[in-house]
Amino acid sequence: MREDINEKCAVVGIFGHEEASKLAYFSLHALQHRGQEAAGISSSDGKKLHTIKDRGLVMRVFNEKKLSTLSGSSAVGHTRYSTAGDDSILDAQPVFARYDLGEMAIVHNGNLTNADEVRNKLIEKGAIFQTFMDTENLIHLIAKSSKDKLLERIIDAVQRIEGAFSLVFLSRSKMFAMRDRFGFRPLSLGKLPNGGYIVASETCAFDLVGATFIRDVKPGELLIFEEGKEPISMQVLESVTPKHCIFEYVYFARPDSNVFGQSVYQTRKDMGKELAKINPIEADMVIPVPDGGVPAAIGYAQESGIPYEMGIMRNHYIGRTFIEPTQEMRDLKVKMKLSPMTDIIKGKKVIVVDDSIVRGTTSRRIIRMLKEAGASEVHMRVSSPPTTDPCFYGVDTPDKESLIASKMSNQEICDYIEADSLAYLDEAALLRSVKSTADEDKYCTACFTGKYIV
Amino acid sequence: MREDINEKCAVVGIFGHEEASKLAYFSLHALQHRGQEAAGISSSDGKKLHTIKDRGLVMRVFNEKKLSTLSGSSAVGHTRYSTAGDDSILDAQPVFARYDLGEMAIVHNGNLTNADEVRNKLIEKGAIFQTFMDTENLIHLIAKSSKDKLLERIIDAVQRIEGAFSLVFLSRSKMFAMRDRFGFRPLSLGKLPNGGYIVASETCAFDLVGATFIRDVKPGELLIFEEGKEPISMQVLESVTPKHCIFEYVYFARPDSNVFGQSVYQTRKDMGKELAKINPIEADMVIPVPDGGVPAAIGYAQESGIPYEMGIMRNHYIGRTFIEPTQEMRDLKVKMKLSPMTDIIKGKKVIVVDDSIVRGTTSRRIIRMLKEAGASEVHMRVSSPPTTDPCFYGVDTPDKESLIASKMSNQEICDYIEADSLAYLDEAALLRSVKSTADEDKYCTACFTGKYIV
Amino acid sequence: MREDINEKCAVVGIFGHEEASKLAYFSLHALQHRGQEAAGISSSDGKKLHTIKDRGLVMRVFNEKKLSTLSGSSAVGHTRYSTAGDDSILDAQPVFARYDLGEMAIVHNGNLTNADEVRNKLIEKGAIFQTFMDTENLIHLIAKSSKDKLLERIIDAVQRIEGAFSLVFLSRSKMFAMRDRFGFRPLSLGKLPNGGYIVASETCAFDLVGATFIRDVKPGELLIFEEGKEPISMQVLESVTPKHCIFEYVYFARPDSNVFGQSVYQTRKDMGKELAKINPIEADMVIPVPDGGVPAAIGYAQESGIPYEMGIMRNHYIGRTFIEPTQEMRDLKVKMKLSPMTDIIKGKKVIVVDDSIVRGTTSRRIIRMLKEAGASEVHMRVSSPPTTDPCFYGVDTPDKESLIASKMSNQEICDYIEADSLAYLDEAALLRSVKSTADEDKYCTACFTGKYIV
Amino acid sequence: MREDINEKCAVVGIFGHEEASKLAYFSLHALQHRGQEAAGISSSDGKKLHTIKDRGLVMRVFNEKKLSTLSGSSAVGHTRYSTAGDDSILDAQPVFARYDLGEMAIVHNGNLTNADEVRNKLIEKGAIFQTFMDTENLIHLIAKSSKDKLLERIIDAVQRIEGAFSLVFLSRSKMFAMRDRFGFRPLSLGKLPNGGYIVASETCAFDLVGATFIRDVKPGELLIFEEGKEPISMQVLESVTPKHCIFEYVYFARPDSNVFGQSVYQTRKDMGKELAKINPIEADMVIPVPDGGVPAAIGYAQESGIPYEMGIMRNHYIGRTFIEPTQEMRDLKVKMKLSPMTDIIKGKKVIVVDDSIVRGTTSRRIIRMLKEAGASEVHMRVSSPPTTDPCFYGVDTPDKESLIASKMSNQEICDYIEADSLAYLDEAALLRSVKSTADEDKYCTACFTGKYIV
Repeated sequence: MREDINEKCAVVGIFGHEEASKLAYFSLHALQHRGQEAAGISSSDGKKLHTIKDRGLVMRVFNEKKLSTLSGSSAVGHTRYSTAGDDSILDAQPVFARYDLGEMAIVHNGNLTNADEVRNKLIEKGAIFQTFMDTENLIHLIAKSSKDKLLERIIDAVQRIEGAFSLVFLSRSKMFAMRDRFGFRPLSLGKLPNGGYIVASETCAFDLVGATFIRDVKPGELLIFEEGKEPISMQVLESVTPKHCIFEYVYFARPDSNVFGQSVYQTRKDMGKELAKINPIEADMVIPVPDGGVPAAIGYAQESGIPYEMGIMRNHYIGRTFIEPTQEMRDLKVKMKLSPMTDIIKGKKVIVVDDSIVRGTTSRRIIRMLKEAGASEVHMRVSSPPTTDPCFYGVDTPDKESLIASKMSNQEICDYIEADSLAYLDEAALLRSVKSTADEDKYCTACFTGKYIV
Repeated sequence: MREDINEKCAVVGIFGHEEASKLAYFSLHALQHRGQEAAGISSSDGKKLHTIKDRGLVMRVFNEKKLSTLSGSSAVGHTRYSTAGDDSILDAQPVFARYDLGEMAIVHNGNLTNADEVRNKLIEKGAIFQTFMDTENLIHLIAKSSKDKLLERIIDAVQRIEGAFSLVFLSRSKMFAMRDRFGFRPLSLGKLPNGGYIVASETCAFDLVGATFIRDVKPGELLIFEEGKEPISMQVLESVTPKHCIFEYVYFARPDSNVFGQSVYQTRKDMGKELAKINPIEADMVIPVPDGGVPAAIGYAQESGIPYEMGIMRNHYIGRTFIEPTQEMRDLKVKMKLSPMTDIIKGKKVIVVDDSIVRGTTSRRIIRMLKEAGASEVHMRVSSPPTTDPCFYGVDTPDKESLIASKMSNQEICDYIEADSLAYLDEAALLRSVKSTADEDKYCTACFTGKYIV
Repeated sequence: MREDINEKCAVVGIFGHEEASKLAYFSLHALQHRGQEAAGISSSDGKKLHTIKDRGLVMRVFNEKKLSTLSGSSAVGHTRYSTAGDDSILDAQPVFARYDLGEMAIVHNGNLTNADEVRNKLIEKGAIFQTFMDTENLIHLIAKSSKDKLLERIIDAVQRIEGAFSLVFLSRSKMFAMRDRFGFRPLSLGKLPNGGYIVASETCAFDLVGATFIRDVKPGELLIFEEGKEPISMQVLESVTPKHCIFEYVYFARPDSNVFGQSVYQTRKDMGKELAKINPIEADMVIPVPDGGVPAAIGYAQESGIPYEMGIMRNHYIGRTFIEPTQEMRDLKVKMKLSPMTDIIKGKKVIVVDDSIVRGTTSRRIIRMLKEAGASEVHMRVSSPPTTDPCFYGVDTPDKESLIASKMSNQEICDYIEADSLAYLDEAALLRSVKSTADEDKYCTACFTGKYIV
Repeated sequence: MREDINEKCAVVGIFGHEEASKLAYFSLHALQHRGQEAAGISSSDGKKLHTIKDRGLVMRVFNEKKLSTLSGSSAVGHTRYSTAGDDSILDAQPVFARYDLGEMAIVHNGNLTNADEVRNKLIEKGAIFQTFMDTENLIHLIAKSSKDKLLERIIDAVQRIEGAFSLVFLSRSKMFAMRDRFGFRPLSLGKLPNGGYIVASETCAFDLVGATFIRDVKPGELLIFEEGKEPISMQVLESVTPKHCIFEYVYFARPDSNVFGQSVYQTRKDMGKELAKINPIEADMVIPVPDGGVPAAIGYAQESGIPYEMGIMRNHYIGRTFIEPTQEMRDLKVKMKLSPMTDIIKGKKVIVVDDSIVRGTTSRRIIRMLKEAGASEVHMRVSSPPTTDPCFYGVDTPDKESLIASKMSNQEICDYIEADSLAYLDEAALLRSVKSTADEDKYCTACFTGKYIV
């Protein structure tokens, strides 16, 4: 139900498998929740790179015939969320380039914070930019590097960029995977069943293609894939305290994935439990806003002992309508997607659990809907702290002024969304939920705190 | 996740509202789960009927311009599930006819058991049939009736047909709604916010358009809608013990609907509770097969005290792929839709709750998937009795020989689906769950018992 | 370039060929100029009829897979022009019916003049009509006939209808082809290369599938096709003076067809020659309005000795634009399709030959365009008489008041279209051009004379 | 009917008109015959460039909404023919770049003969190439030029490239148009009705938008368009004997265009006349292969006095079919597009005029078709010399070995295509037809002679 905050991309790389592009295709399907606007795959047959990319869902961009042209035993793929620009097709990935060492294709999840600066320097030196993607910087840096070998050039290039990046590079004979020094965005390494390797933004891609999880790519680490060898690891960026995106746990990642070393589902449940501990309230039932709020609501219910109920139903026959509702039809937009379990809710005190509140408009519509359905009280519980600041590390967020928590107090928000009470998870409790390491400081919480790393 | 058993249709009628066809359109969207292959609406502007129908989802069949041609203050609509025939477009509804009293349009949910017999008699008398729908019988019976008035002819016609039907008839100035004497399929009456009435297969349509539930249309009752009047009720078919389709509770109806006088969600939860009472087992968690098994799993968990977990995730980016999986990719078809919450399941005893088992193949794929994800034991619990017999009253079921429970014992099924144990809800417990009336006998349970009414 | 007068349909029948539906498909492609809105084919495999029909061009309605379901050695096909009604898909043909003798499919080119009367009688007797096509009358008449055999019933039925019809009937084992007593619309019989027969609206369909022309189906004749036999001929409607649609020669038929016993191209050339004889004028060149005016312009040039030039070019990259032209762009609509050969025309006296003038607006746009391109004089010559009256025999014409020649004198039309002179072919000369028989009276010229037969 | 030799592109530039992108859109529609695979437009609003490009015909790529985003008073457009590559969308134009002087967009018709060499040099210096278009060289050369101003850089850049190019450059405030020193491909300058200028590959674009022809852009000339000024002309490449592509006259250009100072239609007619003079033969009629052969056939007929007839009809309801013909259906592919006027041809000696013979397969199919239709003799006359060599200046031709005239004598070709006689226009006569200047040497005839300039 989040329409206002979006992960921007997902990446995948396959190395050493006869049907590399097919595995990339199915992996992208599993990663579709991270970007629905465009999809693309580049493969290498050892002599030449082949690229297909287009607007639309993975299933629509590719068909049997197209996939068959993406021959070779290595491939990189990308799905993209994008704000529709003048000609967004140009901003699909992989980014492909011919340069002095041959051909390369790059896929990128994240946002470079020094992209403008790097680009301007490159442009001053005569470079031209044909797209509006940060990623274009990388192919220039690699092409222009004074080093001889691709490996050295990649190292050279990634040392010049700052910000969030999980990258996979494909050349004719090799593949490289890399994460920024803070490890903002996830990237995991897996082993394919009959040989070969996979790297992907989330482990849910491994499950679909039958791969087994090995470990996460480490912050600042570069993995080199060469034929007939184990992946070689190099720590190419200095080791620092990681700053994993905590919002991956809150909302982005698929619950069946394991990111930053923890089960996403379990972490969300724990957030719900913490929420119940610090914001208890008596009520008849705990209900989630589907699908994002489900794990936290289960956790809240387990901790509080208040029954968990499916109080709101999500309608899966979506599809945009351009037909205006009649005058009497209130909140049609939310009702076409969500509907209340009226018979269960009527006359009851209801705790509604959602993962976050961004603009507040959807929450208001949901609470109104529940009250119209007869709920006597609606208590909103949010399994993350107030979202006060935009993200510059690869997430599409509204401007600060559009974030309701940046300009209203909790009570004002509670009044605005017409809830009987409102409570958020606080930062400390959030960090307890992601407790896998002693080091509490390993997460980026800038969207809740405004404390940006760079 | 049911792909093997399907409700065949949904109907809606709107009377006395300036934007009748628009309300029919949104109602059909809410009823989309009952049929995705075709959709249609007929409206009356008082002088003439207008009809648009086509293959596809409601959102695709209609657009602003098309809907604007469906003028008038009354409308009937239909969505259809169909096994693709030679030219299925011809079998979309409403069925429209010009006849001696003018024009009429009919929408029908159900199956006539004497359709062949009636058709053959009509054909003997010179009638021609242009489609393969049972519903075509009705327009012939009305047109050929010796009575003078439409009302009398409708009564005449419905007295000649047998089987399951929830019907809405539209003429230039009136609308009629009717249910068969057994009340097999649901049909409810509601009031529109600013005047006018709605009848629909399920009450979830009321919620979307802002209508309020009045009551169910009674078995054998005919409701007559005329301008400026309250609906007039006539009992036109003899009163008998009703035979409501119990599978509406088990699987078809939307959980937020109220059918046959009970909340669907609450009834499903009660089925889960009964299941826990009669088939208890120790386990670490209760997980549903989404989305059908969710309410029963919640009920099972509440009754047993075993924690409810979201152990299987449903992927909403569906879309058919024609690309063959690689050799190593097992059970791809189910995995593209469902994926296990591996970190939660690993090493655990799991109770999986589903609403029914039809062919058994999907259950087997799911259990295999859970075991591959590491579940130490998987106990299947089904919130309905074994499905042993096909339906002749408006549900698309496989042949008897394809129903696994028609040819295997419970133990054989358990072995086939590779579960550690398997238990069904028995008929008595099922009837306790639908306990709203003293009369246990008011449901059709033929799909579990083979006891057909006619 | 005619957008204002259209042939309504084309029919084809194939009998006794293993790939009947494929031959019907290619035949319909050749007949596409007679109707672009919908297409359909019914085939018989001896046991059952199969029908596919839909909106759109033949090439879009059918694909390999769909065609393969139309099995059997006989097939009938139809393409349709239609004014978009409420739900025009329902008005596609073949019309299919199940009735007391089994199944039948009918395709029809023409218009019945007593359709309303027949329909009302049928409706009085309890018939229902589900479409708005005249053709539906026929399946009722056949079904309700008191005769025992289909042959007798067809004879019975066609004796009750009046107007224009070229029909093909398909039953499980036989095919029947029939023309009305006046032979308004064309229908020809051909022989397939390796056995089997074809009937089609125009002989151009024969050429594409490799069939050889045998003869025209005669007015009032019924041809019966049975397995292993030569077609049997019966004269089932009384013999009268034929009334072939003369507009088939003027505009509808493809120039490479032979209709009513004459080459269409040659006849059009002869019209142009007659036009030159009776309306001579000195000029620098004769140019056609493409493509309709080409043969007559060639004839005019040959007769007059004035050079034939391609003075106007037709742009084949059509496609509708919804983008408004700028203020300065005059007559964009015609210019997107037609453009003047400016260098040739500049400063020249030009004779422009078109086949007919319907509303006059297109002619005016063309003449303006030629004058803007520099033509010093533009003399319009029309290879048919003034179109003064609408057609009731299967052609889609505007209302009488929209026909410019029904309300203006030749001089007024000349002024309106801004020509320097205007001359039409007169009726006598037109009839000389279609001189194949002694009997001048064998054509329907109602659209030029208002003399309707019935 | 040419499927084997194709113009690769068309360009247009609009400067100083409020609705620049709309005029570009309509111009591209007029130029659609030069490329149907992709289309694109860039506009400048003075601050920013806006670009939309995609696969497909102009009418499909753009709609009202998209065009409205292309704001500003200057625009460049492109249509493209392309052999489908891995991901041809990337190779659509305009080519857009951000570089040190801001933003630019380029459209290009032609082929650079030193593209590989230039690219390799650029790549050596660290440039990256993201597409497979020659045009990408230009944006690099401009970006990397050591000059300060865009004008100087464009001059610098075009002096480094060789081959065929008609280019239009768009910056935020200016537009530049340029032709290579030989003037291979056409490019004309026109004036818009209410102020502003247009440059386009062919003058047929002027006619549609109401512009008036001023003159051709000269070989080696650069035109600079600035707000409020007349276009400034600079001769930036040394003046040499021009080498206009003579095939523009033979086949590519639209007959209503004026290219290289002559009417295309008139020139083609003159080729036909020359053909009649040097290759006379007695026959009953002269018929063209439509549409390419029409003007030459008219010329041949006028010169010889043999009647011109429309002996072959072109079917405009094209559309690809994937359905295999039956065994008896010969030459289906050509017959679906062309059909013989059987009644006219039967028993006659026919001269068939076509513009060129490339592979010979189409000619053979056409001649067979005419003979099957009954022609007693078929004499092929070709209004250009034998096509013996491929083009490297912007035309898509088959390999030399696929060109029938590169490996067979005239007699062998005559036998192969099954003609009774075959004659080509010779080079001298071809040059007489394009007689506008004294200098016979001003055309590139490499495709007939193998004499390449560079």
